[in-house]
Amino acid sequence: MDKIEHIGIAVKSIEKSNALFASLFGEAHYKIEEVESEGVKTSFFKTGPNKIELLEATNPESPIAKFIAKKGEGIHHIAFAVADIESEIKRLKDEGFIVLNETPKKGADNKLVAFLHPKSTNGVLIELCQDIKE
Amino acid sequence: MDKIEHIGIAVKSIEKSNALFASLFGEAHYKIEEVESEGVKTSFFKTGPNKIELLEATNPESPIAKFIAKKGEGIHHIAFAVADIESEIKRLKDEGFIVLNETPKKGADNKLVAFLHPKSTNGVLIELCQDIKE
Repeated sequence: MDKIEHIGIAVKSIEKSNALFASLFGEAHYKIEEVESEGVKTSFFKTGPNKIELLEATNPESPIAKFIAKKGEGIHHIAFAVADIESEIKRLKDEGFIVLNETPKKGADNKLVAFLHPKSTNGVLIELCQDIKE
Repeated sequence: MDKIEHIGIAVKSIEKSNALFASLFGEAHYKIEEVESEGVKTSFFKTGPNKIELLEATNPESPIAKFIAKKGEGIHHIAFAVADIESEIKRLKDEGFIVLNETPKKGADNKLVAFLHPKSTNGVLIELCQDIKE
């Protein structure tokens, strides 16, 4: 895994949290993107080689709505950049991790993504992500 | 803030989790360090420009013991690297963030650190850290 690509943070209001994180970083978000299939609106901040992704639910069935109902606002997942997501999925399955998406799916920010179940990773929801090649 | 310096993950057993994260990253931890003042044993992994810090409580009064009792194992904090921690503390206080350590304290891995209260940061415990200059 090459680096922490981003940390996903579940928030109730992207608008309020955009202002808060802009104060924190001294710099505004650089994009907003809706991922309809996941029921989320996302907002991205840069911090050097890494990003922070704010996640707001767009419907009550969204995984983010359920997360906030259960745990409140806070860190939702860590995403690691990988060069070849298919081979990482295979390697991690062989190591005994529970891969939630054996076929990677399209995520925000032009990525192919797959998640590992927190049960197999010390309670941490981990995302693998790979840039989609043109 | 220059980058995500590390993500802190609360674990019950450093020994078990060292094996788990070594499988995840395909590489073993590179150091173990005890921070007696915080009641924690830490273990560090590298992932490109970022680190993962595992945290195990060394006594029942440790903040990590309390965190695990309340929330279970999982992500405990995000640490951002800053060049000048004193001026960042001042800037963030002026922005309205609740700084828990107005005078930075000595953390693991040769750092001066200060935390921001999650109440002021969308439920995320944020650490600022600066390398201690020789």
